[in-house]
Amino acid sequence: MPSKNKIMALIVQKYGGTSVGTTERIGNIADRIVATKKLGDDVVVVVSAMSGETNRLIALAKEISRQSSPREMDVLLSTGEQVTIALLAMALNARDCPAISYTGSQVHILTDSAHSKARIKEIDGSRIHRDLSLGRVVVVAGFQGMDDNGNITTLGRGGSDTSAVALAAALKANECQIYTDVDGVYTTDPRVEPRARRLERITFEEMLEMASLGSKVLQIRAVEFAGKYNVPLRVLSSFTEGKGTLITYEEDGVEAARISGIAFNRDEAKLTVLGVPDHPGAAYQILGPIGEANIEVDMIIQNVGRDGTTDFTFTVHRNDVEQAVRVLNGVASELGAREVNSDDSIVKLSLVGVGMRSHAGIAGSMFKILADEGINIKMISTSEIKISVVVDEKYLELGVRALHDGFELEKTA
Amino acid sequence: MPSKNKIMALIVQKYGGTSVGTTERIGNIADRIVATKKLGDDVVVVVSAMSGETNRLIALAKEISRQSSPREMDVLLSTGEQVTIALLAMALNARDCPAISYTGSQVHILTDSAHSKARIKEIDGSRIHRDLSLGRVVVVAGFQGMDDNGNITTLGRGGSDTSAVALAAALKANECQIYTDVDGVYTTDPRVEPRARRLERITFEEMLEMASLGSKVLQIRAVEFAGKYNVPLRVLSSFTEGKGTLITYEEDGVEAARISGIAFNRDEAKLTVLGVPDHPGAAYQILGPIGEANIEVDMIIQNVGRDGTTDFTFTVHRNDVEQAVRVLNGVASELGAREVNSDDSIVKLSLVGVGMRSHAGIAGSMFKILADEGINIKMISTSEIKISVVVDEKYLELGVRALHDGFELEKTA
Repeated sequence: MPSKNKIMALIVQKYGGTSVGTTERIGNIADRIVATKKLGDDVVVVVSAMSGETNRLIALAKEISRQSSPREMDVLLSTGEQVTIALLAMALNARDCPAISYTGSQVHILTDSAHSKARIKEIDGSRIHRDLSLGRVVVVAGFQGMDDNGNITTLGRGGSDTSAVALAAALKANECQIYTDVDGVYTTDPRVEPRARRLERITFEEMLEMASLGSKVLQIRAVEFAGKYNVPLRVLSSFTEGKGTLITYEEDGVEAARISGIAFNRDEAKLTVLGVPDHPGAAYQILGPIGEANIEVDMIIQNVGRDGTTDFTFTVHRNDVEQAVRVLNGVASELGAREVNSDDSIVKLSLVGVGMRSHAGIAGSMFKILADEGINIKMISTSEIKISVVVDEKYLELGVRALHDGFELEKTA
Repeated sequence: MPSKNKIMALIVQKYGGTSVGTTERIGNIADRIVATKKLGDDVVVVVSAMSGETNRLIALAKEISRQSSPREMDVLLSTGEQVTIALLAMALNARDCPAISYTGSQVHILTDSAHSKARIKEIDGSRIHRDLSLGRVVVVAGFQGMDDNGNITTLGRGGSDTSAVALAAALKANECQIYTDVDGVYTTDPRVEPRARRLERITFEEMLEMASLGSKVLQIRAVEFAGKYNVPLRVLSSFTEGKGTLITYEEDGVEAARISGIAFNRDEAKLTVLGVPDHPGAAYQILGPIGEANIEVDMIIQNVGRDGTTDFTFTVHRNDVEQAVRVLNGVASELGAREVNSDDSIVKLSLVGVGMRSHAGIAGSMFKILADEGINIKMISTSEIKISVVVDEKYLELGVRALHDGFELEKTA
């Protein structure tokens, strides 16, 4: 029985493909939802396709045609979540918990028409509110919506997180809980630093930096969306109990931790154009053709020139490095630059924390810690709440552990 | 190129689960549709789930719960056809044939809310007409629709035939072609009588009788629907070429065949209540409890009484015979009837043909043919275009062949 003093909350829970990967797991999820419901909260559940299902459907499409129309791919792939919503609603009903399932179209998750990567424009929450008021758990298909013409759209892989956050925003939910295979956001990857600590809280901005730096706990777009609409977001494990990590805005009066965590990314490669004649427009002449080749650029460094030339360095995804070198060789000769270098045995290490804003000297401490371990820094880039360095790949573990230790991240702030 | 003299027709084609059972078969269907389109006709295609898919989904539901909510079963099962429409549209697009897929909801196949056995109330053809006018093939999911509240409904197994006919009616199509694994309607089952002949034409009424008598080429509801809205229906094979069988109303001026075919049914059992006191209401007292037990009754015979009592005989599905006997034993003692008999080693043979209306003596010929073979008739029942007899199971093949031969059905009328 719900306690009389408790204020009823509306919780949106999202379960990914692994969490609903078998009918047995769907049963476990149903048990968890029933438990939440028994606390007296209203629950809306967003689910992905059962793991493996999306790949099965993609394989069918490939048997039909090498290049399928994006509209029809969306019609095909959206069946994956539709199967899950029906099965989960059945599992809840079988537990005497009234539940009803909806596809994205049925609850008017309105998107633009960019098939396979649509963006949510609007959600009509009235139907869901009506079901909630009747005591039902509402199960909604993630990852999908429809455009103005009623065509089925998908938000792209992993877009179920975004569906959940968007629903939470539209319904003015008290919390959006993202259930994953990890039990929260850590100060760094526990496989690299066993003393890594689960964070109780982290801010949206920090989470965005962590996510963009390769901590793949949450989809970046989902975090952006949650930040924009101020939806408190919680990351939890669907397999173990625990409070997870709450992602919210920084609260006044609470002194922020100086550093929230250490992210790293081993997917990048570094490219340098040496001896670029130092004249206006050189940066554009280099990066323009890279962009046209659909290669995404991450860090960009250009130091002050010497002898009328400068060196221009940037990082790209490792998969793109060969193509980028080909593009740059053409550009270099046009520019009269001396040489093009590439290095794909690098990693990027980043300190992330809103506390950096008000605490000078963090960058200095970071560089000293790395120097003490004999780690040479190849590139540096900073933002308001992040300091990133590029170092040799072999220093990844050593660097992460030294920084974790040096900033005492194993201790609660 | 379409011939200039040809009047453009609108054809609705329906392909069942076996015809779309693999991606290779979907490719073959796409080739066939492209060929139809090249003749200059507009084509709307209705498809079922790939064979095996519906059973796979039902098995998943059974893993979740023994008894699933009908609403959620429909959400689940409707994904089967949705997969097929996407794959077929892709296959057509890959053949440079512009195509677009729609679920039942998307083209507003409006049904009542009887989940798993919904009936179509209305279809809005405007969206399909718009696509056709743009030169597209429109691929629609069979077997499904939505109710007034936007809930997904299904028409029950095999309901794709009905979807196709209903669409043909709503779109005022020139013909509704049902592709199956047989190449038409035969004078009788060719496995029993090898000289059975494919009919060029048959009337809706005859087809209804044939279907209800166990010739499972088409869904009865689809034939009824086609008859009601006067949609010319054609049964063809999706694996071989051929004109199939056209099902229409009897045309004036064309002399109807006396007999169209011989249908038979081995699923029935015969029940007799002997020595029923011959008073008004006895029939109701017997059949009322049978109906309440949800047992469907087919033939009913009550002969004139003797000595103040009568014998009451009817047939039911063999699966129901034990339950029916239990019900009747109770009824018989209440009624003061003498005895209850059952016999499940019977078959029903039926002559079907609109020509019977105007040709007397067919029943007589039928009984003589059977008598000449020494086949004893246990029950007789007639309608305007059908004569059915119940005989011993062992006479099935002999009876069918004797009638086929006796009425010279191997010859074109």
